[in-house]
Amino acid sequence: MTHLPLCLTMGEPAGIGAEISAKAWHRLHESGPAFFFIGDPRSVRGAPVAAIEAPEQAVEAFAAGLPVLPLPLPAPPQPGRPDHANAIAVIAAIETAVRLCLEGRAAAVVTNPIQKSVLTGAGFQHPGHTEFLGELAGRGVPPVMLLACPGLRVVPVTVHAALAEAIRSLTPDLIIEHGRIVAEALRQDFGIAQPRIVVAGLNPHAGEAGTMGREDIEIVAPAIAALRQGGIDARGPLPADTLFTPRARANYDCALCMYHDQALIPVKTLDMDGGVNVTLGLRIVRTSPDHGTALDIAGSGQADPGSLIAALHLAADIALSRSRNARP
Amino acid sequence: MTHLPLCLTMGEPAGIGAEISAKAWHRLHESGPAFFFIGDPRSVRGAPVAAIEAPEQAVEAFAAGLPVLPLPLPAPPQPGRPDHANAIAVIAAIETAVRLCLEGRAAAVVTNPIQKSVLTGAGFQHPGHTEFLGELAGRGVPPVMLLACPGLRVVPVTVHAALAEAIRSLTPDLIIEHGRIVAEALRQDFGIAQPRIVVAGLNPHAGEAGTMGREDIEIVAPAIAALRQGGIDARGPLPADTLFTPRARANYDCALCMYHDQALIPVKTLDMDGGVNVTLGLRIVRTSPDHGTALDIAGSGQADPGSLIAALHLAADIALSRSRNARP
Repeated sequence: MTHLPLCLTMGEPAGIGAEISAKAWHRLHESGPAFFFIGDPRSVRGAPVAAIEAPEQAVEAFAAGLPVLPLPLPAPPQPGRPDHANAIAVIAAIETAVRLCLEGRAAAVVTNPIQKSVLTGAGFQHPGHTEFLGELAGRGVPPVMLLACPGLRVVPVTVHAALAEAIRSLTPDLIIEHGRIVAEALRQDFGIAQPRIVVAGLNPHAGEAGTMGREDIEIVAPAIAALRQGGIDARGPLPADTLFTPRARANYDCALCMYHDQALIPVKTLDMDGGVNVTLGLRIVRTSPDHGTALDIAGSGQADPGSLIAALHLAADIALSRSRNARP
Repeated sequence: MTHLPLCLTMGEPAGIGAEISAKAWHRLHESGPAFFFIGDPRSVRGAPVAAIEAPEQAVEAFAAGLPVLPLPLPAPPQPGRPDHANAIAVIAAIETAVRLCLEGRAAAVVTNPIQKSVLTGAGFQHPGHTEFLGELAGRGVPPVMLLACPGLRVVPVTVHAALAEAIRSLTPDLIIEHGRIVAEALRQDFGIAQPRIVVAGLNPHAGEAGTMGREDIEIVAPAIAALRQGGIDARGPLPADTLFTPRARANYDCALCMYHDQALIPVKTLDMDGGVNVTLGLRIVRTSPDHGTALDIAGSGQADPGSLIAALHLAADIALSRSRNARP
């Protein structure tokens, strides 16, 4: 077991981040995993705050209160009403969390949801968290988004692009690169010695032998052949509609999907509140809950901490697995 | 209650059709709904056969055995090995079933799965069952495929086309036409007085205000506006990934999806064995199980009749509802 705490960023101060963080502390303060919150201590309600000055104090402080490494907000947070003045602190919390991990002072970064439009107004140039983390802690490969819920892991090969553009950007190399990163992560981060990857077809029925589109023959199949030649147990292209039935799910460790909704629909259909987003291909471990800032219910006390708790557990599991399985 | 029996076609003789039909009879012969099988009596195993000469004998015969309206196969069926010689009988069973419905001698057509490649070899020109039924019993609108499982109904606006082609073929008119047919069917066939329809966006996050594709603004949104102007409670475009969570599903009666996998992934992820395919926009009622011929397990006795039983129940419900709610 790793003795380092997890580092949890504040996320959008007008959202549900502080609330679900306090609720997660209540659920985990006896059992762990221990974590600390980077944010404004005044924003935390519903849990005792244990102010800390350094991550090294977090594990000991965790039983008595939610450890908070203070990063004061320029403007007082108002539930449901994001303030551009706070964007700088939101971004600084992410940067600090990554740095503490890279310095070996935290086991993993867990991020609360951000409101991208607010950050964009403050000069944030990245399509999202994942791409920003790729810049802060990349390792020469693109950051890859894996979504996990009980019984299912999926990875979209293309993510935040118009569907027509996603189709145009699909190449064998892109699929191969994602397949390799996923296979490595399943071994190293998830402790699966012989990972089984299935690859969804782009077209309905995986193109039905080319009668409904040639991409599955010309782009997806060659990528799978190359992955197999590289010793990776990849199968497909398989029809996406039958790939996520309970019976099908039992036969693989991760499904590689061709576009955003093909990957996210099954995970969110199965398990909205317990889904976790994991970023692969970084020098650090990073997870996040699989939902947004929920501005509409912020401040009402209704937010469900399930996905954040799952993200904290998974971050701890991955950090432990990576420390055991990392290749030199 | 309608006193007409349901008519069940043989489907591919080398598949699981006869097996699941016999199993469905065992499950339903005391409670109903009564149905008869159009096919070769020699292909039925595992249930007593009650040979009938006309649909009018089916309801009375149903308690004692599976009523079979004989349509002999040219070649003896071999499980798992389709024979082109039988294609003519497979097609004739569908044509007969439709005719008996149009003549008012059967309440609905329920189709066992066919093996399209086998029928194509015999000159069958249609992309599938649905399009063939549109030709036999259309009413000047395109046949529309609705998939239903407990708690979810979905309709894909584009179906059997390459994904890139599906995007190109998407127009406001196509969405409006589907929305109208769905709204009418929800009222008439499903007995929902004020149907609530949601419309999935084409792009991830429904295009996120045009930053990921313009189609949701230029094609989907105007179609929704037109439907609303026509008095139909349609909402969207909504991000597809969060449209099928348990919480979201509680707030609508049917989701209109932009392409095949967007509609079929959530239904099959939730309920592979109890999913039912319903064809809207026909002069007859038609349902079918939501799976294929399962050639790989044909003859082994392992086939699950759950989806066929659900299709029989739903066909009876729709026939009853339509007889009550049909507009003059």
